[in-house]
Amino acid sequence: MMTAEQQLELIKRGTEEIIQEAELLAKLKEGRPLKIKAGFDPTAPDLHLGHTVLINKLKVFQDLGHEVFFLIGDFTGMIGDPTGKNVTRKPLTQEQVKENAKSYQEQVFKILDPQKTRVVFNSEWMGQKTAADMIQLAAQYTVTRMMERDDFSKRFANQQSIAIHEFLYPLIQGYDSVALEADVELGGTDQKFNLLMGRTLQSRYGQSAQICLTVPILEGLDGVQKMSKSLGNYIGVSDSAGEMYQKILSMPDSLIPRYFELLSFKSMSEVNQLLQDIATGRNPQEVKKILAEEIITRFHSSEAAANAHKAAGNSLAYGEIPEDAPDVTIKIEQDVIDLPISAVLNRAGLVKNAAGAKDVLSRGVVFVEGQQVASDYRLAVGQTKVIQAGKKAIAKVTLSY
Amino acid sequence: MMTAEQQLELIKRGTEEIIQEAELLAKLKEGRPLKIKAGFDPTAPDLHLGHTVLINKLKVFQDLGHEVFFLIGDFTGMIGDPTGKNVTRKPLTQEQVKENAKSYQEQVFKILDPQKTRVVFNSEWMGQKTAADMIQLAAQYTVTRMMERDDFSKRFANQQSIAIHEFLYPLIQGYDSVALEADVELGGTDQKFNLLMGRTLQSRYGQSAQICLTVPILEGLDGVQKMSKSLGNYIGVSDSAGEMYQKILSMPDSLIPRYFELLSFKSMSEVNQLLQDIATGRNPQEVKKILAEEIITRFHSSEAAANAHKAAGNSLAYGEIPEDAPDVTIKIEQDVIDLPISAVLNRAGLVKNAAGAKDVLSRGVVFVEGQQVASDYRLAVGQTKVIQAGKKAIAKVTLSY
Repeated sequence: MMTAEQQLELIKRGTEEIIQEAELLAKLKEGRPLKIKAGFDPTAPDLHLGHTVLINKLKVFQDLGHEVFFLIGDFTGMIGDPTGKNVTRKPLTQEQVKENAKSYQEQVFKILDPQKTRVVFNSEWMGQKTAADMIQLAAQYTVTRMMERDDFSKRFANQQSIAIHEFLYPLIQGYDSVALEADVELGGTDQKFNLLMGRTLQSRYGQSAQICLTVPILEGLDGVQKMSKSLGNYIGVSDSAGEMYQKILSMPDSLIPRYFELLSFKSMSEVNQLLQDIATGRNPQEVKKILAEEIITRFHSSEAAANAHKAAGNSLAYGEIPEDAPDVTIKIEQDVIDLPISAVLNRAGLVKNAAGAKDVLSRGVVFVEGQQVASDYRLAVGQTKVIQAGKKAIAKVTLSY
Repeated sequence: MMTAEQQLELIKRGTEEIIQEAELLAKLKEGRPLKIKAGFDPTAPDLHLGHTVLINKLKVFQDLGHEVFFLIGDFTGMIGDPTGKNVTRKPLTQEQVKENAKSYQEQVFKILDPQKTRVVFNSEWMGQKTAADMIQLAAQYTVTRMMERDDFSKRFANQQSIAIHEFLYPLIQGYDSVALEADVELGGTDQKFNLLMGRTLQSRYGQSAQICLTVPILEGLDGVQKMSKSLGNYIGVSDSAGEMYQKILSMPDSLIPRYFELLSFKSMSEVNQLLQDIATGRNPQEVKKILAEEIITRFHSSEAAANAHKAAGNSLAYGEIPEDAPDVTIKIEQDVIDLPISAVLNRAGLVKNAAGAKDVLSRGVVFVEGQQVASDYRLAVGQTKVIQAGKKAIAKVTLSY
């Protein structure tokens, strides 16, 4: 049995903010299973690893014996866009909500234990509420404080319209915490305002105020922007084992610590050992393979993980060094001692022309011995290196007179 | 049968604004009874003549054959102040609402025809609404436009808090017009925003937009500030015949045209004749008596109107000239040809001292031959005038050497 302090240590890993940590510790010390809430959109889910950062944190609470409430916000989803302006936000039917919930569960139960997870729908309690109840709820918060929410203040300042019902949605989300009597609510950093709303409303309704725990937004495979479908820099929960393998092996080395902290269930001491190994010379690709194995096992199976390399198919993962790369020798002029990587790519035939070299370098998909390089990299005379440009062009290149 | 144009002429009398007059004319031309809405607070009513300006206008519509809906906004009244901060705004019970409605009817049915007036309660339709309906309603309006309402913009600018449910109340009031399918809504000038809300919402809900008609705020007996209980410058609907008589006879002459326009049902040609009479020398007190007679007949009876003078009791109405005023002669110095009114009051014993004279003059309760006078009035040697200071001090004063 873990102490409250030990539990807190595990919970804190990779979190962005806990409001308030001391309160969480006090609740953990009560020794009872805490009610852990996380809210999800009722639209058709298509999760990527960025979404699983939160679900992984729910799993930590679950493994510590706490009670996870996976809340689907179907009440407002079934209303749709009441202004009628956004035709893509059609009201969901009860059937669609159920179907989407099923799809959610298929995806998140790869991580959470179905037996221990309470899937709840806020239409259960909000559907019973009257207009008078809604007024009561709206009375608990002021316009000024609502305007403090980032997106509202920006839109108001930019004279973009905010329909009044948009002020009611955060209140409903907050009221869900009252209905569940949540002890802790989890959300992304962008949800902080809404999480705090639950805290406020619980106090107003005479409950102990929930702890708000935010998890960071995961960077996508480019290492810069947040992981998102629309940016194409994502690993989908439903991606094939081969796709997962290829994407993880292709990501910049700089993402390794972050992805292990947020996506792996290995202990931090194990993770730190792996990072130490890289620092002392281990090929980062090997460490990425360890992460890929864990992720693929989670969402597919250990067999799939073992065969992922093959499953990746003909496309090579970025930076992966095949055993059969063709040898290419570039003959250079006597007065030259090295070449910039752009010239190497061009002369080795890995790109069609100078513009092609510029393109792959700007996209960051040029690897030398499995390490991503930038346009300032130079190959010296006498060196032999495996060089990769994009997913398919690879060669073992030697520079000589 | 009146033409639409003739009806419009009667309706327009004394109105502040009609949005839009052309639309009202078009509706009148349809030849059907229009639905005329006016909303009232469900708290215990204690009406004064200021409130009756609106009810008089309803009466005009009623007499023209239109259908008057006297709407009591009990839905929000039964919620009370949901913030719990305003302890004086306790939620009303169904019984209290009924009792207050009965009291309303006793007062307004002195003007409106009970047989032709539909008294309705908005809890009839709002009580059926769900939280989802409330959200739908809130979606029909934007925060920016709601902020345009005078009191909201001022409070927001002054960082005074506005609870979010306060944004819902005008929407409910507007929705009442949808529920009633109102053709015209009447209100005071301070209600313009809320009346326009009904217009907007009816359009959103696919109805023909109501015409908004505002009536002015009636000045109180001081002729300056609006009539109000708290300012004490009012004539209550429940005042005794004697009180009404005394108050009307005491009001400044300058109010006569306004009070006739807004409070009398005499035709404007009759009213203009009376004003003409005053201009050509008729004592304004006589014209006030005509108004007093009409008002007292309306709220009491014609017998009460006939006996109102006696009913006014020992207190004299301001400016009323009794038959038994005592004679007082002021002897003045040989080198003086007249005296300022302050000196006259003091020397005639109508006030105790110079300060007393200043007081009655500043309160505007000094009358000479029934005409209000200011501090620049002077009495000339040889003149004899009935002079009154306040309600009880009166004398027929002669100035002589």
